Amino acid sequence: MPGNIFGSIFRVTTFGESHGHSIGGVIDGCPAGVRLDLNIIQKDLNRRRPGQSAIVTQRKEPDKVTFFSGIFEGKTTGTPIGFAINNTDQKSKDYSHIQDNYRPSHADYVYDEKYGFRDYRGGGRSSARETASRVVAGAIAKQFLSPITIDAYVSAVGSLKLKTNPSEVDLSKIEENIVRCPDPQMASEMEDLIKKIRKNGDTVGGIITCVIKNVPAGLGEPVFNKLHAELGKAMLSINAVKGFEYGSGFEGIQKKGSEHNDLFNSDGSTKTNYSGGIQGGISNGMDIYFNVAFKPVATIMQNQPTINSKGEEVQMQGKGRHDPCVVPRAVPIVEAMAALVLADFTLIKRTNKA
Amino acid sequence: MPGNIFGSIFRVTTFGESHGHSIGGVIDGCPAGVRLDLNIIQKDLNRRRPGQSAIVTQRKEPDKVTFFSGIFEGKTTGTPIGFAINNTDQKSKDYSHIQDNYRPSHADYVYDEKYGFRDYRGGGRSSARETASRVVAGAIAKQFLSPITIDAYVSAVGSLKLKTNPSEVDLSKIEENIVRCPDPQMASEMEDLIKKIRKNGDTVGGIITCVIKNVPAGLGEPVFNKLHAELGKAMLSINAVKGFEYGSGFEGIQKKGSEHNDLFNSDGSTKTNYSGGIQGGISNGMDIYFNVAFKPVATIMQNQPTINSKGEEVQMQGKGRHDPCVVPRAVPIVEAMAALVLADFTLIKRTNKA
Amino acid sequence: MPGNIFGSIFRVTTFGESHGHSIGGVIDGCPAGVRLDLNIIQKDLNRRRPGQSAIVTQRKEPDKVTFFSGIFEGKTTGTPIGFAINNTDQKSKDYSHIQDNYRPSHADYVYDEKYGFRDYRGGGRSSARETASRVVAGAIAKQFLSPITIDAYVSAVGSLKLKTNPSEVDLSKIEENIVRCPDPQMASEMEDLIKKIRKNGDTVGGIITCVIKNVPAGLGEPVFNKLHAELGKAMLSINAVKGFEYGSGFEGIQKKGSEHNDLFNSDGSTKTNYSGGIQGGISNGMDIYFNVAFKPVATIMQNQPTINSKGEEVQMQGKGRHDPCVVPRAVPIVEAMAALVLADFTLIKRTNKA
Amino acid sequence: MPGNIFGSIFRVTTFGESHGHSIGGVIDGCPAGVRLDLNIIQKDLNRRRPGQSAIVTQRKEPDKVTFFSGIFEGKTTGTPIGFAINNTDQKSKDYSHIQDNYRPSHADYVYDEKYGFRDYRGGGRSSARETASRVVAGAIAKQFLSPITIDAYVSAVGSLKLKTNPSEVDLSKIEENIVRCPDPQMASEMEDLIKKIRKNGDTVGGIITCVIKNVPAGLGEPVFNKLHAELGKAMLSINAVKGFEYGSGFEGIQKKGSEHNDLFNSDGSTKTNYSGGIQGGISNGMDIYFNVAFKPVATIMQNQPTINSKGEEVQMQGKGRHDPCVVPRAVPIVEAMAALVLADFTLIKRTNKA
Repeated sequence: MPGNIFGSIFRVTTFGESHGHSIGGVIDGCPAGVRLDLNIIQKDLNRRRPGQSAIVTQRKEPDKVTFFSGIFEGKTTGTPIGFAINNTDQKSKDYSHIQDNYRPSHADYVYDEKYGFRDYRGGGRSSARETASRVVAGAIAKQFLSPITIDAYVSAVGSLKLKTNPSEVDLSKIEENIVRCPDPQMASEMEDLIKKIRKNGDTVGGIITCVIKNVPAGLGEPVFNKLHAELGKAMLSINAVKGFEYGSGFEGIQKKGSEHNDLFNSDGSTKTNYSGGIQGGISNGMDIYFNVAFKPVATIMQNQPTINSKGEEVQMQGKGRHDPCVVPRAVPIVEAMAALVLADFTLIKRTNKA
Repeated sequence: MPGNIFGSIFRVTTFGESHGHSIGGVIDGCPAGVRLDLNIIQKDLNRRRPGQSAIVTQRKEPDKVTFFSGIFEGKTTGTPIGFAINNTDQKSKDYSHIQDNYRPSHADYVYDEKYGFRDYRGGGRSSARETASRVVAGAIAKQFLSPITIDAYVSAVGSLKLKTNPSEVDLSKIEENIVRCPDPQMASEMEDLIKKIRKNGDTVGGIITCVIKNVPAGLGEPVFNKLHAELGKAMLSINAVKGFEYGSGFEGIQKKGSEHNDLFNSDGSTKTNYSGGIQGGISNGMDIYFNVAFKPVATIMQNQPTINSKGEEVQMQGKGRHDPCVVPRAVPIVEAMAALVLADFTLIKRTNKA
Repeated sequence: MPGNIFGSIFRVTTFGESHGHSIGGVIDGCPAGVRLDLNIIQKDLNRRRPGQSAIVTQRKEPDKVTFFSGIFEGKTTGTPIGFAINNTDQKSKDYSHIQDNYRPSHADYVYDEKYGFRDYRGGGRSSARETASRVVAGAIAKQFLSPITIDAYVSAVGSLKLKTNPSEVDLSKIEENIVRCPDPQMASEMEDLIKKIRKNGDTVGGIITCVIKNVPAGLGEPVFNKLHAELGKAMLSINAVKGFEYGSGFEGIQKKGSEHNDLFNSDGSTKTNYSGGIQGGISNGMDIYFNVAFKPVATIMQNQPTINSKGEEVQMQGKGRHDPCVVPRAVPIVEAMAALVLADFTLIKRTNKA
Repeated sequence: MPGNIFGSIFRVTTFGESHGHSIGGVIDGCPAGVRLDLNIIQKDLNRRRPGQSAIVTQRKEPDKVTFFSGIFEGKTTGTPIGFAINNTDQKSKDYSHIQDNYRPSHADYVYDEKYGFRDYRGGGRSSARETASRVVAGAIAKQFLSPITIDAYVSAVGSLKLKTNPSEVDLSKIEENIVRCPDPQMASEMEDLIKKIRKNGDTVGGIITCVIKNVPAGLGEPVFNKLHAELGKAMLSINAVKGFEYGSGFEGIQKKGSEHNDLFNSDGSTKTNYSGGIQGGISNGMDIYFNVAFKPVATIMQNQPTINSKGEEVQMQGKGRHDPCVVPRAVPIVEAMAALVLADFTLIKRTNKA
């Protein structure tokens, strides 16, 4: 309930502030006998890491994960998997200017309202640094889920939007550019836009699309825990996310039912996939796909008027290092959260029949 | 986990199939001493009820709720509130045609894949009739939440879209027309569109916008249980919902951070509200608003080719009664689910400080 | 959390006050395809029912259960099973004497402290009448669990104690007498004792022993959710229970490790069973057995001095109908709660391996 | 569900194997603003630590805890508190003899049945070393709970039993001897008995009694989550525990209701306290007290016949270091688990009234 535990059977608890000793988590409920390749986990961490390219924040964090438990002779044991990532680039002095001042559209003000005070260093718990723990857990979930595949990519930056049908995208091209957009031409335009935005000390939003393949029918629970409801919660829990849609999404409302219904083939697959692989909250075996909208992040390199904890007007200086556009680094986070949802439902499905 | 329980402290469990004995639920965790006006609860049920106007399904269900427990001398006692609504208009014979046949874009196929068989009468548990139980629970949550107000309205039907800023809408006009759109001119156009769609035996989608006022700062939990993440899950758990966005939503991605940041007034309120009343997953005291996209419902009054449980091609006849557009009746459901989320977080907030 | 939901996957929510409209519950997470014999459920209810014999309370309640959902064509569907039992013998006037007065060793005082007021009629939610809902849910769990068998019996009343090893008791004899003690001679003595106690308007405590057979190895989770920890919680949640022990229990503390260790046979079974079928919190395939201690119930037919809600001394009159000894009627409740625990762990076990 | 998370709002997740990298945990839901004295936490760890006296195992573990997050400027922040204790005295070679052999009355056999394989080093996750994480979490809960006090002591070793009423024990004497029995004479006899048992390479059981003072009325939830039910689960989840009783417990069954009822004083306190401070599952403001039975631990320094994973008979050699009697070191564990239960219910109580 207090909000740092995710999942019902495959359950992840995370901890850690941006500038504390370390961040990390515990996975409880990972089945025994999953053979883990730790390099794959680190690889996903590297995709989220600051400093990885010219269009992301230049902070330096190696983000090296240490596992404490739950893995023995290369396999999960069924007991909790504890892990941590040390915070190395803490530069706490960078943040003295926000000790008493509230950054606009950040969580500073609401944390003070909620808890009475806060660890102000680097945003503390509200920093997106927290998502590194999710990436670790998700990378383990992915290995459990194989042969289900989960691939996310950047489909929009600002007003630049890739219109290709998600099931027709060449997913092998995602990691070929630093934007993580599978269309090289569009990727190049997006990169230019981000660089321009950055030069102005500003930020811009974007969309990440995720495609999940090889999903068996029957994942998701009716009523409150529909598969897309949990995916939606998972995505909306990621920092800076403002919207979620799956299948035909917001555009689908303009269609008529007679156009929008997915007619069956004789094997139970469907001729179209406006449903996005989910019907009545339950996977039907078709590709699952969804979009996640990220706002322009609030940390900008421009001065802004704001208030301090006494309600006095103060000037907030734009300084330090920031991400001009969060979506390239958020791709592995989207995948991780999707993996956690699917891992949980995969286990729950085993309990559906007598 | 099996999906019929919602909330962590203010917790609702629902049961019931469309054509079984009854539907209903249990609210566990409603605080003691909430004075309940049962008429208000019935009034919300009536807003969801079939047969209420010319643009909704003409099924006849009185949807009269009976309370079993948890209320004494007009007040909640702190013990579970059990309730049920009898199914009266069951006409089970109407549904013999779907006993073995899978309706396109319905849950028939996935239920069989998941559970091995299903109560096929009227869609069984996958019917939106289930949401009446949510409306009961939500109407109780609303009375607990007062003076917080929760008002939803139809903001789009097909391509007709109301563009008014949610905080400037005259909420008192919502119930003045059968579409539940607060703009009379737009409501009239929407009504015409729905009637035209209906005449063709077809359906169309729409958007419901919800506005929540008088929210104290501090609701919502950081990380996984962000306020908008739980609101998103709640909305996406409603039948036919395909998308959720709050504050600036999907459009916000095109803004720059310098435009999108909400600058503070000295009292902690903000000059703009792109945040939609939520920052870092926690309410900041401004109006909360969000959009919910509903697809065109899959039940159409046209014949469609489909398959049966043996994979044979069969013809699905369009017959019976249906909603040409689900949004007018879904308005109280959106409000109810929002109320459940806020009631839960209101209680959790009491545990945040020592 | 608010205490009316039990279990994690096989989950039961109950509602209802002693003298309200009805009591009942919802089972969420019962797997699909369990063939249910409703007569077996009613039979367990009859074993718990007041008025069943000369040594229990003479209240008249038919305790007839109505199912609302989740069962179709004789089988569970995987959707929630809602049910209720109407309260018919409400005689609310009987309870006016406790409206403002606190019965000693009852929950009247603490309910007022906790909730500010209470439904005082017949003890309201704190009445053991609530356990009828548990018996319904447990009787369904038993049918899911077959061929696991769960049998409870009375092993002590006051100072009369049956010393037979639980695994050697003839369980077929339990229902042959109204005490539910499988030893006819001891049962007769217990019956005499209860009748004598009753004549004095007094009450006496007792012990129920439960034996579970055909349990596969591997049920129960390490650390916090040990099988015996959940069984203990389940038993201690039953009204009037004061203690729980399993296997060698409290007596076992006097043994030496060299005497107490259960040595293995070559098939993994053990030569002795001081472990009570559970090692490290996990079933090992041997019979599970445990004892549950019930206090002498607090409702006596004697006058007692007590206080009212203003703290004034008043006289509490002993009147109405009461159980001189609760254990004969509590036997099916113990079985039901054990069944709920085992059903839950049976489902969880399916998620233990990749 | 998978068993390594405890509590509903004040929630502890633990991880770690006896001989892995480290053990530790995460506390989610500790309210913000609790001033923490880290020395008090370490002091409780030292009371549980191996090697602390002549009557416990001579393994050397400093059990030094490191906090990762959730504490800032000496106070809790409301965000998760992550922590770990490194395993330093791992001597993994000591355990090669149990790699394929099943120790009698240990969890080796059931882990293999449940998970397919196990981390056999030092018992892995089933080792009582895991309880050090509980002590850390409990020591934080205690500081939140102040002025509620929680004191446990050894009341029985083998057949030596302290009969003093728990409310009359001089709790200040508990830590004055290495047995942790508050009666010096009895403590001396117990120490002699333990030393004798140890000389024979054997083990013996015991009882720990816990007394909780200054508890407000109203903690605990009716029905399934009764205060004593959660305390019982908490205690039964501790390694080697076989039984739990509170208030009059197992002995109380022999009393008559007219003797056993606790009559009120005019201030709501009671003249006697057979209820053990809990009525109807809810605290009534009187002292809470309960007994916890610990079996003779299974690790003995004698040779025993047993089987290996192939079902072959083998000889298990008694070697290494062991606790002849577990209760002196289990005292802080009992206190810690009691503190976690009370912390959770203290927070839940805040949600009981409108």
